Amino acid sequence: MHIHLINPNTTAGMTATIRDAGIAIAASGTRVTASQPDSGPVSIEGHFDEAISAVGVTEEIMRMDRESPADAYVIACFGDPGLLAAREITRAPVIGIAEAAFHMAALISTRFSVVTTLGRTVIIAEHLLDQYGFSHQCRRVRAAEIPVLDLEDDGDRALEKIIEESCRARDEDGIGAIVLGCGGMANLTETISREVGLPVVEGVTASVKLAEALVGLGLSTSKVGDLAFPRAKTFTGQFSHLSGLEPAQ
Amino acid sequence: MHIHLINPNTTAGMTATIRDAGIAIAASGTRVTASQPDSGPVSIEGHFDEAISAVGVTEEIMRMDRESPADAYVIACFGDPGLLAAREITRAPVIGIAEAAFHMAALISTRFSVVTTLGRTVIIAEHLLDQYGFSHQCRRVRAAEIPVLDLEDDGDRALEKIIEESCRARDEDGIGAIVLGCGGMANLTETISREVGLPVVEGVTASVKLAEALVGLGLSTSKVGDLAFPRAKTFTGQFSHLSGLEPAQ
Amino acid sequence: MHIHLINPNTTAGMTATIRDAGIAIAASGTRVTASQPDSGPVSIEGHFDEAISAVGVTEEIMRMDRESPADAYVIACFGDPGLLAAREITRAPVIGIAEAAFHMAALISTRFSVVTTLGRTVIIAEHLLDQYGFSHQCRRVRAAEIPVLDLEDDGDRALEKIIEESCRARDEDGIGAIVLGCGGMANLTETISREVGLPVVEGVTASVKLAEALVGLGLSTSKVGDLAFPRAKTFTGQFSHLSGLEPAQ
Amino acid sequence: MHIHLINPNTTAGMTATIRDAGIAIAASGTRVTASQPDSGPVSIEGHFDEAISAVGVTEEIMRMDRESPADAYVIACFGDPGLLAAREITRAPVIGIAEAAFHMAALISTRFSVVTTLGRTVIIAEHLLDQYGFSHQCRRVRAAEIPVLDLEDDGDRALEKIIEESCRARDEDGIGAIVLGCGGMANLTETISREVGLPVVEGVTASVKLAEALVGLGLSTSKVGDLAFPRAKTFTGQFSHLSGLEPAQ
Amino acid sequence: MHIHLINPNTTAGMTATIRDAGIAIAASGTRVTASQPDSGPVSIEGHFDEAISAVGVTEEIMRMDRESPADAYVIACFGDPGLLAAREITRAPVIGIAEAAFHMAALISTRFSVVTTLGRTVIIAEHLLDQYGFSHQCRRVRAAEIPVLDLEDDGDRALEKIIEESCRARDEDGIGAIVLGCGGMANLTETISREVGLPVVEGVTASVKLAEALVGLGLSTSKVGDLAFPRAKTFTGQFSHLSGLEPAQ
Amino acid sequence: MHIHLINPNTTAGMTATIRDAGIAIAASGTRVTASQPDSGPVSIEGHFDEAISAVGVTEEIMRMDRESPADAYVIACFGDPGLLAAREITRAPVIGIAEAAFHMAALISTRFSVVTTLGRTVIIAEHLLDQYGFSHQCRRVRAAEIPVLDLEDDGDRALEKIIEESCRARDEDGIGAIVLGCGGMANLTETISREVGLPVVEGVTASVKLAEALVGLGLSTSKVGDLAFPRAKTFTGQFSHLSGLEPAQ
Repeated sequence: MHIHLINPNTTAGMTATIRDAGIAIAASGTRVTASQPDSGPVSIEGHFDEAISAVGVTEEIMRMDRESPADAYVIACFGDPGLLAAREITRAPVIGIAEAAFHMAALISTRFSVVTTLGRTVIIAEHLLDQYGFSHQCRRVRAAEIPVLDLEDDGDRALEKIIEESCRARDEDGIGAIVLGCGGMANLTETISREVGLPVVEGVTASVKLAEALVGLGLSTSKVGDLAFPRAKTFTGQFSHLSGLEPAQ
Repeated sequence: MHIHLINPNTTAGMTATIRDAGIAIAASGTRVTASQPDSGPVSIEGHFDEAISAVGVTEEIMRMDRESPADAYVIACFGDPGLLAAREITRAPVIGIAEAAFHMAALISTRFSVVTTLGRTVIIAEHLLDQYGFSHQCRRVRAAEIPVLDLEDDGDRALEKIIEESCRARDEDGIGAIVLGCGGMANLTETISREVGLPVVEGVTASVKLAEALVGLGLSTSKVGDLAFPRAKTFTGQFSHLSGLEPAQ
Repeated sequence: MHIHLINPNTTAGMTATIRDAGIAIAASGTRVTASQPDSGPVSIEGHFDEAISAVGVTEEIMRMDRESPADAYVIACFGDPGLLAAREITRAPVIGIAEAAFHMAALISTRFSVVTTLGRTVIIAEHLLDQYGFSHQCRRVRAAEIPVLDLEDDGDRALEKIIEESCRARDEDGIGAIVLGCGGMANLTETISREVGLPVVEGVTASVKLAEALVGLGLSTSKVGDLAFPRAKTFTGQFSHLSGLEPAQ
Repeated sequence: MHIHLINPNTTAGMTATIRDAGIAIAASGTRVTASQPDSGPVSIEGHFDEAISAVGVTEEIMRMDRESPADAYVIACFGDPGLLAAREITRAPVIGIAEAAFHMAALISTRFSVVTTLGRTVIIAEHLLDQYGFSHQCRRVRAAEIPVLDLEDDGDRALEKIIEESCRARDEDGIGAIVLGCGGMANLTETISREVGLPVVEGVTASVKLAEALVGLGLSTSKVGDLAFPRAKTFTGQFSHLSGLEPAQ
Repeated sequence: MHIHLINPNTTAGMTATIRDAGIAIAASGTRVTASQPDSGPVSIEGHFDEAISAVGVTEEIMRMDRESPADAYVIACFGDPGLLAAREITRAPVIGIAEAAFHMAALISTRFSVVTTLGRTVIIAEHLLDQYGFSHQCRRVRAAEIPVLDLEDDGDRALEKIIEESCRARDEDGIGAIVLGCGGMANLTETISREVGLPVVEGVTASVKLAEALVGLGLSTSKVGDLAFPRAKTFTGQFSHLSGLEPAQ
Repeated sequence: MHIHLINPNTTAGMTATIRDAGIAIAASGTRVTASQPDSGPVSIEGHFDEAISAVGVTEEIMRMDRESPADAYVIACFGDPGLLAAREITRAPVIGIAEAAFHMAALISTRFSVVTTLGRTVIIAEHLLDQYGFSHQCRRVRAAEIPVLDLEDDGDRALEKIIEESCRARDEDGIGAIVLGCGGMANLTETISREVGLPVVEGVTASVKLAEALVGLGLSTSKVGDLAFPRAKTFTGQFSHLSGLEPAQ
């Protein structure tokens, strides 16, 4: 089984963090690869960054489906950028790390809180909770107020602030679990869980296991109705290579 | 990894169906066992049957935790009887097949319908959809109007009716996937999917893969707050063996 | 008119408290009786206790329906354990004290808060508020952090803590009424209301009056559809006496 | 105990129907009276009629509180016109027949449908279901398409159409009970229930019993916060008699 | 284009404030007039005041439609009293200032808070948010605890308290905009926005622009279905002039 | 005042239709311009098309803000692609035609239905209704099953099918208004409204008027919190021109 992780931002260091986390958690028979798009933002910290990164996410999936089709894809940014678009263009299951983390947290606790990076991304998580149906299970989306790339560049300080905010969540929110709200936190799960004393759910690792589950079940994105392959059509300009797109398989 | 499936009704034939489905879907390193309670209804077709069966579910988990602790437990009846009670009494993750099927269906389609056995159980599925947050993703809960044990005793006729209702769901509900609403349908997934032409999600198999996922992630039921072990206390009468219950650890 | 109150836990002292409260509030033509199951937990403080106690609740209703059928039954634990199961097995109306209190509080205030016993039972009340449709009317479910049996064994201290928490609710929640979240508080309504200066709604007394109302209206549980009598079937083991159950009437 | 029913429209015949239904259902110790405002519409079939009738409703309550204070008031029109305004101006409990019917129907069934008069009033019932929290329990609000006064003037034909629509509700909606959506149907409950074969909940009778319940519990409208007596102030013109209004106490 | 603003209370000074704000914001081709009813409360601070004022609102619209029909009407009290009634009785669009403010705030921010006058009116705004669908976009309804007429009589102190509460909203609620919750604040928008440093949405001005928008689009209240003209009928007493009401056009 | 309409697809003929509709509806002092991106799909009929077109939408806004800043922008595709991203990158208000149409329809009716192009886009409208809070006001999203470009290439046939579906909505959905679900229908409003006999709300025209309203109010996108300008950062590859983006103003 081959699971391909797409880091929607273009910071290779973060792709490595994500890949390592994915490989570490994968079952013995699962091959995990990871890549980031050539084009896009180096970090994703708002709706604009999300919108741009969605293009790279879909390009990566189409490239992989042509070159080396994976059995499942993971979108490793907590806003799940391009998730439904990605599901349209491939037959393979596609999982976003936010949804994966919410699903898993809901299975081990009655209530959880999210700890994410910057305050301005809280709204993105709240919209996803609403859309996916988990807003009742989530007590609060909290921000540690760290820029995404600080996870790379100033890791110790970032970790400290995440732990502080997670402790506040534990003490004030009446929760049973913490969800980490950024793909760049994929290597921090264990430390945070130990420090905070609560189960900590992280989306990259959760996605890999959910992807294994779906593939194991023989389930892939429904191609009937809403998520059928896009209608082939002309694209212009820098997107003209998408014209008359035919599904890879 | 050891996953134990509990058939909440006491019909051994259905336990076998469930066990076989679980074994067939499990990863190579996963051992799947199954049992049913000694005491309880032979089928579960309403709230009363659910309430009685919840006792057997928790008894089976406590027995297993004493005798041969599994890494995860699955409650293989579509009403998820005793789910939160079960989560209190063990450290291992516990998954209900209704929730498992809903989670998986939400990952491969934007909208699904449920096809269950008797009309009187529709309300049970609707309550679960509300509680778990999936009521917006589910277009409709439909009943094929077959008693649960007909799945055992009159399998061909039952299968035919389930396929008929699933086709109606496909044609009328605007959906991308079908969820099968009974543990006794665990062996029918492939046939129904082929006949209906839609992905079909079945809860026993979905639960086994979700259990593997949770165990792989090192996640288990949060013991902080709502799902902490029950407070030790006296039970009377036929339940006196539960007095002063100490978690198996 | 005969209303029978079932204390779902097996503590006789609490049954007496409940019975006394019921008798005190009943109309002159109403006979109120009360009992507790022979088997079950001495207090109910979580999902596991709820699940076990649901058996006793249904057993008591079936026993009464055979021996001395009441015109209505009340389930006198704030989690309403076994409520829908109970409605299936009898023709008489069955009322849970949590739902009764919510209904009454919604008639005299626009917003209320619940003050219950232990923090771990908050989630049970929240689930009921969602299921019954009162989550918008309830500002907050609060716990006084007293074990249920302290209401019996350390009554003064318990009362003090409930009053303290109720005062916090009054001062912080923007509410017009308090709902008491435990059947064992049935005798405290007046004192708390006087101390807190808000209407206080208590479920045992509310249930008795709602039961009188339903019986007076000639309304009983609908036997068409979801709450029809359970299908007769075989039960095994300690529940074999339930086999082929025929409704009492 | 004295319960006063206010027919918000000014048709005396309908007041008589409502009074008779109230008297017939009241407990032996309960005195039931009824009146309609001097001023207002002869029937209520839309938002405008509702708005005008709300004035008469509050005037009647203030008049009664001055002349012959009742222990509880019932607003006997299915749109519950002026309900929250009425609760502000009196210490006594005030119950609307729509809310009363919804509360009672929710206690005896998991799902109900409403059968009301004209299609244009469906929206009023839907708004109330949302506001009170019962929209999930109600499958559908249906109209028999009869003007309100036909219940007085062409009773047999009206009854026939209500029964027809109720039968459609029974056959198509998957429900356990019918709610009658007009105070003028207060005398039809029994006939409709017999013809349709489902429990039928009617609001006037339900309100009387709920009022008895509240009064029996010693509960009345919370005067803390949202429903406190209106602030005394100047009113002008035809409403100048409301200036400096002091609660009747 | 002629837009008529109705101040639902009978304080002429407030009508002037509202008129001035409307004239100042109107497009060059728009004529703005304003009036208050002859009869009604001098301020609106609760459900009772709302109910009474709804009569005046509809009377003013009917009078205008007879004498000098406007192209659109605005109900300039934050509870939108009589809104749906008003929509029934005229073909022209009718806009409430609460709904107008919510609509506009939702277009420029993801989350807003409301700052209104007295705590007892918070519930009115919350009900409107629910009914209109904006409860998710509104973080909190706050009260500055000033009586409505203080806006006229003690303007500086009132302004100060509104600014204080708005600053608290800005600092604590995680919002992008403030909605002012009273028609009497129509002249304070600019000052408050400058002091608080957030966009401030005020309903009177928002309504005028929304009215211009609707009229410009050729859209008016749908006369098919729910909001069709009221059925002509007899009214009695002080409302007898409404008998056999025929739409103005 | 200058309002710029962005046709998110790259079909110039559709841009002309949108521009003409915008100019026709604009107030006398309003200048309306329109453009489409150089790069993107020729029509938008699913999530993938939406994701790609969001890039062009934001590029057009940034180009305009550099070259000829408009006072407001309109995104003229019914999925509102890139709406929140667009709001981040400009100080001017940005309005999507779906949200505009929903807001306007909610002001003139209690319930509306949407008639859109292809069945696969229904889910997009449903997600927007949920996110914006209008799902209760919308009875049903219907598809006429016409590809978007048929509006250009086979206009008569397309119009016929839209009218047919709108008539079904009128007859079956209990609605007061129709919302047209595609920017390419901007020139059909009048014809459809006349044929169907209901108010018809179309998003391009609605957006122009809402934009005029916001600009007239001096309101623009809140730059505090969620919609603040994106953090300046490095973009790579084909998006490198976005690096260190500074707001135009």
